[in-house]
Amino acid sequence: MENAEASLPTHAKDNPNVSADGAPSKNALKKAQKEAEKAAKKAAAKAKEAEQKAMQQAQAAEDTATDNYGPVPQDAVEITHLKKLGDDHVDKEVTIIVRIHNSRSQSAKLAFLMLRQQGKTIQAVVAATGDSVSKQMVKWAVGININSFVRVTGLVKKPDPPVASASISNLEIHVHKIYLVSSAAEQIPMQVKDAERPPPAQEKEGEVDAEGAPIVTLKTRLDNRVIDLQTECNQAIFTISSAVEGLFEEYMRKSGARKFNTPKLLGAATEGGSGVFEVNNYFGKSGFLAQSPQLHKQMLIAGDCEAVFEIGPVFRAENSNTHRHLTEFTGLDFEMVFNHHYHEVLEFAEQLIVFIVHELNARYKDEIAVVKKSFPRAGDFHLKDGKALRLKYFDGIKLLRDAGVDTTEQDNFVTDLTTAQEKKLGQIIREKYDTDFYVLDEFPMVVRPFYTKPHPTDPKLSNSYDFFMRGEEIMSGAQRINDAADLEASMRAKGVDPNSEGFQDYVNAFRQGCRPHAGGGLGLNRIVMFFLGLDNVRQATPFPRDPQRLRP
Amino acid sequence: MENAEASLPTHAKDNPNVSADGAPSKNALKKAQKEAEKAAKKAAAKAKEAEQKAMQQAQAAEDTATDNYGPVPQDAVEITHLKKLGDDHVDKEVTIIVRIHNSRSQSAKLAFLMLRQQGKTIQAVVAATGDSVSKQMVKWAVGININSFVRVTGLVKKPDPPVASASISNLEIHVHKIYLVSSAAEQIPMQVKDAERPPPAQEKEGEVDAEGAPIVTLKTRLDNRVIDLQTECNQAIFTISSAVEGLFEEYMRKSGARKFNTPKLLGAATEGGSGVFEVNNYFGKSGFLAQSPQLHKQMLIAGDCEAVFEIGPVFRAENSNTHRHLTEFTGLDFEMVFNHHYHEVLEFAEQLIVFIVHELNARYKDEIAVVKKSFPRAGDFHLKDGKALRLKYFDGIKLLRDAGVDTTEQDNFVTDLTTAQEKKLGQIIREKYDTDFYVLDEFPMVVRPFYTKPHPTDPKLSNSYDFFMRGEEIMSGAQRINDAADLEASMRAKGVDPNSEGFQDYVNAFRQGCRPHAGGGLGLNRIVMFFLGLDNVRQATPFPRDPQRLRP
Repeated sequence: MENAEASLPTHAKDNPNVSADGAPSKNALKKAQKEAEKAAKKAAAKAKEAEQKAMQQAQAAEDTATDNYGPVPQDAVEITHLKKLGDDHVDKEVTIIVRIHNSRSQSAKLAFLMLRQQGKTIQAVVAATGDSVSKQMVKWAVGININSFVRVTGLVKKPDPPVASASISNLEIHVHKIYLVSSAAEQIPMQVKDAERPPPAQEKEGEVDAEGAPIVTLKTRLDNRVIDLQTECNQAIFTISSAVEGLFEEYMRKSGARKFNTPKLLGAATEGGSGVFEVNNYFGKSGFLAQSPQLHKQMLIAGDCEAVFEIGPVFRAENSNTHRHLTEFTGLDFEMVFNHHYHEVLEFAEQLIVFIVHELNARYKDEIAVVKKSFPRAGDFHLKDGKALRLKYFDGIKLLRDAGVDTTEQDNFVTDLTTAQEKKLGQIIREKYDTDFYVLDEFPMVVRPFYTKPHPTDPKLSNSYDFFMRGEEIMSGAQRINDAADLEASMRAKGVDPNSEGFQDYVNAFRQGCRPHAGGGLGLNRIVMFFLGLDNVRQATPFPRDPQRLRP
Repeated sequence: MENAEASLPTHAKDNPNVSADGAPSKNALKKAQKEAEKAAKKAAAKAKEAEQKAMQQAQAAEDTATDNYGPVPQDAVEITHLKKLGDDHVDKEVTIIVRIHNSRSQSAKLAFLMLRQQGKTIQAVVAATGDSVSKQMVKWAVGININSFVRVTGLVKKPDPPVASASISNLEIHVHKIYLVSSAAEQIPMQVKDAERPPPAQEKEGEVDAEGAPIVTLKTRLDNRVIDLQTECNQAIFTISSAVEGLFEEYMRKSGARKFNTPKLLGAATEGGSGVFEVNNYFGKSGFLAQSPQLHKQMLIAGDCEAVFEIGPVFRAENSNTHRHLTEFTGLDFEMVFNHHYHEVLEFAEQLIVFIVHELNARYKDEIAVVKKSFPRAGDFHLKDGKALRLKYFDGIKLLRDAGVDTTEQDNFVTDLTTAQEKKLGQIIREKYDTDFYVLDEFPMVVRPFYTKPHPTDPKLSNSYDFFMRGEEIMSGAQRINDAADLEASMRAKGVDPNSEGFQDYVNAFRQGCRPHAGGGLGLNRIVMFFLGLDNVRQATPFPRDPQRLRP
């Protein structure tokens, strides 16, 4: 719009409504200004109308490419995925459905678009060089809102030099046709290109980083998760997350285990009420959300299912606001009978982690490399000789003590390892054994839950184990008590009433005979986090839930 | 114990304490009786002691097999699974870990045990014919409580004639060693052999069937699910359930879709409060359990995930007490972008069902045959020419109308098909097209949720579809609205506020551009139920939840 102030008509100077000092009166000035504004608006509107008319006429007369842009047509042209584009497409025409990551107009006849699909980017050239691409088409293409979806048909070319700013730098597309598939709003709350940058060491919302680009905090990213997920890094993280689940399932099924889905709605709080979410409208009763599938997967074992696994949500009503705690996460659980000794199951579980790490490194090199751009520790997860390192709990304590860490409380069976001690032990083990994955076996009975089988000869210890990646816990497991009388005694010793509502079915399950069994529960989100060396478990969770966050 | 009354000493007859009529006085009689009882007890105790002593001496002296029975020893003998036993094991020694399904003693030197593992049974012979099996060992084996776990080592033989009562009838085991692994209580609330019988047409607890065997109702079975799961039929049902999940995952991954876990805890009730379970202690707020992953899987699509699937719990706070409704079930969900038309996705979903049915029939013949013993419709699921049958919704209505069904309400867009109409249509289609799987496409917009994409030319219809197996719904799906403004209009038309807390993130997801997409949600439990022709969805659910049931 033109500036009304600047077009103040000059004849106002000759107006009789002037004050004694020759200056116009306030009222007169106001009136004149209003009239002038009115006139200017009218003139501007007229001019715009004329311009539009002229443009339409010009377009109708000159535009030779009207069929090659605009709304997407109804046809069935073959669509290629950007990630499948390669050297064998050079000099061939392809059609892709992509977002506009960025666009710039070089001249009326030339524009460059950066196109994006699932985080991968490629440059496209829109050049009005012949009849199939017109100046109007170039203008239209540059005017499309950033992040909108377009369907682009064009010739694949090898740019020389490569396009450094594109992730697919060795190819570009010379556009013949471009259609709008879905338009993005003009204003979006966060730019994908800003979310593409690695998270800074210190996150300060509203500030800019060393290069002047806006800092996007984890909170803003998660508030706008739908945009955040569009980054190349997040696309890679969730490809790996999906793969971890798939590898877990593959390993379990190959062993003959069956998949089950145990109920998440329980009739009683089996961990005493604290840490449990309560459902208050279960048809006149209270329900409770399962904190783990522990009791039910053992009941499946008592029901002769022999080897079971489950992938499902685990709910924890704990007010833990840390980098690795969530109120809802995905549990990878398994439970199985063994023939002679619980180490059969422990060995099986160790090999599971070895399998997952090995296969991720073998099958997802590209995705790991993408994540590494934002999280430098991605790809350096060590497994000495491709094997698990198993230590007895008190041998782990000794390593800490030898390194000068105070372990008095652990030596005296007072508490479990602290998070700081676990991390420290992880460092010591990485230096001493060159591995990021270790297992501690034979935990003290006092720090384990009531269903844990005590050690056969030392009642202070138990047949239980934890798994650690980069010094942080990813799994807890044990042999379980499979005799009802022993279980009742253990429950009483831990202050749990075996006759309470939530436990009767569980304890009764073992009265009908049950084979010795062991198992464990892994946290999917943590495995992904620690394997890739992310900063925060929320980065490995599509829509994280914590005490502060129930959206999006 | 001996009968004290019968051993009343005869010299009481000569006692002076007799009444005038020559009969002993009441007091005298009482006294004599007491003394007699005392003496008898003493004598009995002495006799028992002597007997036990003699037995112990005899055992110690004679028992040549003390190492071959009793508590299970610590060793590492190779264990064979009962289901792997075959003709190549004949005349070889095997060791198995099994339950005692039944036992009977033929003589002091011969007993027959029916052994069971995961529902499969085999006969074992314990015969005291040499030094390795003693009479004491036979007695001990027969005395083990039914359902206990034992470790049995023995020679595999071919019985002639086969053992009709065992599911592995062509083999039996001649026991050399038997050890107790885990003892079952003497009394168990329900016998596995009673749960093995097919459910009767009319279930009357406490009564007996035509053959005099106790009737076990579905309620009793579910109350004692751990025992119920031990039947051969249930073992087969849950092998198939695990397989359906696996096949769904296999099909999805092969297509390139990624697995996601969307949150089950939501900050707002997105279906208006009715039918939603509320969590009342979410850190000072209310949380709500997801009734489906619909909104979040679409947000993943808006986040460029392109093709996603999820397997997870779905919560419905609906007071529906029917054979096919649960308050918690396992949803198999998928959502994906398409290039040109939503029928790309519909075709993909139809092929999914064809794949699952085909692979189940190919890979799980044995399990289907086992289920057929209890549920005669198992194994007769028809797929005409191995293809899906797709009809337009109103062509389905016409089939009903032609068969004399009143479809006035459907013709006038008042209601969806009723359950009775769906079943009737299933019968008509089975007769006319020889298939148990059909798809209805283009449902009226009025009976579909707000996120459904209307039909492009007839606004009364929509791009949506339902899948049916044996005339009952297993999946609902549609193309979704991918434009924020259209979505808001559709929400308002359905009385949903797009600015309410639970919907803002969802609607905003589409403001940043989103490709056209479609998807669907299947119920795992229903697929298993209808494929196998079970009576009740609870039979296909390990631990079902309904308005009346929150346990075990």
